[in-house]
Amino acid sequence: MARNASLSGFPEWLPQERLVELHVLDTLRRTFELHGFSSIETRAVETVGQLLRKGEIDKEVYRLSRLQEEEPGAGADAKSTSDAKADAALALHFDLTVPFARYVVENAGYLAFPFRRYQIQKVWRGERPQDGRSREFTQADIDVVADGELPFRYDVELALVIVEALSALPIPAFKLRVNNRRLAEGFYRGIGLADTAGVLRSIDKLDKIGAEAVADLLKTELGATDSQARAALALASIRTEDTTFVEQVRALGVTNELLEQGLSELEQVVSAAASRAPGSVVADLSIARGLDYYTGTVYETVLVGHENLGSICSGGRYESLATKGNRSFPGVGLSIGVTRLVSRIVGQQLAVASRSVPTAVLISLADDNSWPQAQDVAAALRGRGIATEVAAKAEKFGKQIKYADRRGIPFVWFTAEDGSHQVKDIRSGDQSAADPASWTPPAEDLQPSVVVAPGAP
Amino acid sequence: MARNASLSGFPEWLPQERLVELHVLDTLRRTFELHGFSSIETRAVETVGQLLRKGEIDKEVYRLSRLQEEEPGAGADAKSTSDAKADAALALHFDLTVPFARYVVENAGYLAFPFRRYQIQKVWRGERPQDGRSREFTQADIDVVADGELPFRYDVELALVIVEALSALPIPAFKLRVNNRRLAEGFYRGIGLADTAGVLRSIDKLDKIGAEAVADLLKTELGATDSQARAALALASIRTEDTTFVEQVRALGVTNELLEQGLSELEQVVSAAASRAPGSVVADLSIARGLDYYTGTVYETVLVGHENLGSICSGGRYESLATKGNRSFPGVGLSIGVTRLVSRIVGQQLAVASRSVPTAVLISLADDNSWPQAQDVAAALRGRGIATEVAAKAEKFGKQIKYADRRGIPFVWFTAEDGSHQVKDIRSGDQSAADPASWTPPAEDLQPSVVVAPGAP
Repeated sequence: MARNASLSGFPEWLPQERLVELHVLDTLRRTFELHGFSSIETRAVETVGQLLRKGEIDKEVYRLSRLQEEEPGAGADAKSTSDAKADAALALHFDLTVPFARYVVENAGYLAFPFRRYQIQKVWRGERPQDGRSREFTQADIDVVADGELPFRYDVELALVIVEALSALPIPAFKLRVNNRRLAEGFYRGIGLADTAGVLRSIDKLDKIGAEAVADLLKTELGATDSQARAALALASIRTEDTTFVEQVRALGVTNELLEQGLSELEQVVSAAASRAPGSVVADLSIARGLDYYTGTVYETVLVGHENLGSICSGGRYESLATKGNRSFPGVGLSIGVTRLVSRIVGQQLAVASRSVPTAVLISLADDNSWPQAQDVAAALRGRGIATEVAAKAEKFGKQIKYADRRGIPFVWFTAEDGSHQVKDIRSGDQSAADPASWTPPAEDLQPSVVVAPGAP
Repeated sequence: MARNASLSGFPEWLPQERLVELHVLDTLRRTFELHGFSSIETRAVETVGQLLRKGEIDKEVYRLSRLQEEEPGAGADAKSTSDAKADAALALHFDLTVPFARYVVENAGYLAFPFRRYQIQKVWRGERPQDGRSREFTQADIDVVADGELPFRYDVELALVIVEALSALPIPAFKLRVNNRRLAEGFYRGIGLADTAGVLRSIDKLDKIGAEAVADLLKTELGATDSQARAALALASIRTEDTTFVEQVRALGVTNELLEQGLSELEQVVSAAASRAPGSVVADLSIARGLDYYTGTVYETVLVGHENLGSICSGGRYESLATKGNRSFPGVGLSIGVTRLVSRIVGQQLAVASRSVPTAVLISLADDNSWPQAQDVAAALRGRGIATEVAAKAEKFGKQIKYADRRGIPFVWFTAEDGSHQVKDIRSGDQSAADPASWTPPAEDLQPSVVVAPGAP
């Protein structure tokens, strides 16, 4: 970024940078809608009780209070005990999954299942800001959620949708890394390690502390034997862009029913991706997604050459997103870190907007009284989708052209006293007669476009 | 609304209602961009000191604290005194003007002035929720701000832009009521009432307490004589859709330089509006916009037949939006209450979405193994902008059609074993041969559209 945010962790964009963000958001929306996902938004606040239900680290949560109020908890109904009050107190959501689960339960009677939704909103976490991590950031989520049972095929479909969405963005190549909890858990059980959650937590640290330290953890904390630790690490080292991971796992000689189910599921995802989107999906058996409540497929995504940014898109399958009485709502979904992506695009100028304003044409004024006629010309152009401004004062033409140049407006329009019109491309200096009823700028000048920078890696 | 929000004051929309909101937001964005306004967003939080700088009622403000923190003020740099700490504490913004002013000052070196921006974001106020007033709501603001001097013509332009934007929405007829602070202040001074702010505050109560009570206020609280009170009320009773208000004011026999300037300014706005957008703008000399910091033109908007909703779009001219050293940034702008409008549209079904999902076509499955071929058909359709879903399981065709029907998807696609394709309009039952490479639904079925309900007032 050229500038620092005036409040650390709360990035803001200049108009030209915002065009890059808008392009990313529009592209995601379009892809999601083409795949039949409906837009929803949820309120920015949840009750503290709702947010902490799944045991997330509560340190990250921003709680609200009314400035003039002694007791926090504005907006929620007062309850009798102070515990209940604390639960009902309001806080900003830290992701879009918890609010979506509440929304599904509250509106189950009004939704057609399997319900496909996308949700693009800001979330807040009171974490220490660093490169790729803000306190306020935008997420773009897609999920499919069923009432009762959700066919596995959706795990395959969502991988394909997200690959299509990310491929349409002005970003470097990416790898969607896929694993399967059943595969991993079945394997650990098959080698005699019963605390599968504990093993996953240790394996999740591979990138940070390395294989040897993970082996130590497995042995000291989980009582694994040397050969069990070696087997767990061998599984985590498997990485293939096709379905050959299946043979590699089988070669480790472990048999377990859950492992077989996981292998078959992961094979379906990778096989479909290898044929429909070759090179973008990897079976990566080290992916654990430590704290999350996934039960099957898990996804993570890195930008090639920008691995230090962390995952730019993660998700998975959860057997029970929410429950309502005896109904259970399983789902599968992914979340794109829009702000993380846009910060990197803008910060390293991986892509730039072709101009900083929507305006294609400035209608100049020959004299102050011609403003109404200038508005007529502008209205004619806008009627054909051409973004147009009218000069506010009849300054010298040179000054009006300079104004357009300063704002990055490519064309200036002149109307002579005799009512004839001319339009000038102020970049080339080319000027020619033009008719307000028919003139159109070249397609590439109609709207600002976002283009991958030529030098971008 | 069909349902009540689960948290009072925090409305949430069902997918079909959200389509109405999206249509409103897309329409506003398109209009603003056609007029050369650039999109920006500001962070949701400001420091408490910044928010209270203009003396807004602090009761409305939601302050943030980290859940695990004793001291509020997360995110801001610690300062030495506790007053400074309270100032630096973070709170949610309650409008988009205060954040915009900060943004302009912080980024003045990067912006081309006059800077034209639109900003569509949620804001939060801890007020008592009621019809037309939420605690979380979306505003859509446009402003033009200059570095130094902003020609009056922008006051005229912004009225025209906002009339065009509102006219494009699926809402009943509206009236943009315009007045001018200079006109009112000059008049009050001309009749010998020096406390013009006091008079404005009293006149602002006209709608609520009536003319007689306002006259009493003017006399008892401001020491006005009977004839001064009558003159002030006579001015406030003037309302014309053309520039005849000028004669009516002159007929009251008051002369004052500021009054003349205000008359001339208001005349320019109303004259342009009467010729370019007849019937949508009214000179209404009772509009005071009590607490706001406007210095010239003031705007307010009511929906005809929905006056009880309050103003759906307000704004005005401020001589100094912000200052930076000896630089001053005057501006003029308006803010549309999107949530207020959408709540009314949805609540009274003034307009509805033609279907609840983006999907136009469901590709059915003859057998489970044909899913990859179905994805090929879907990809071909999506390539031409047709939103398409693929069935997840090869259930009986009747069940697959029922699924489409339940979700409101108009077309179901069938691929026979011999590779031939048929598409069925499940509303009419019409079925015919189709080619994935060329078939297109009728234009009105391509995307969900938002249409004004036939019975809407």
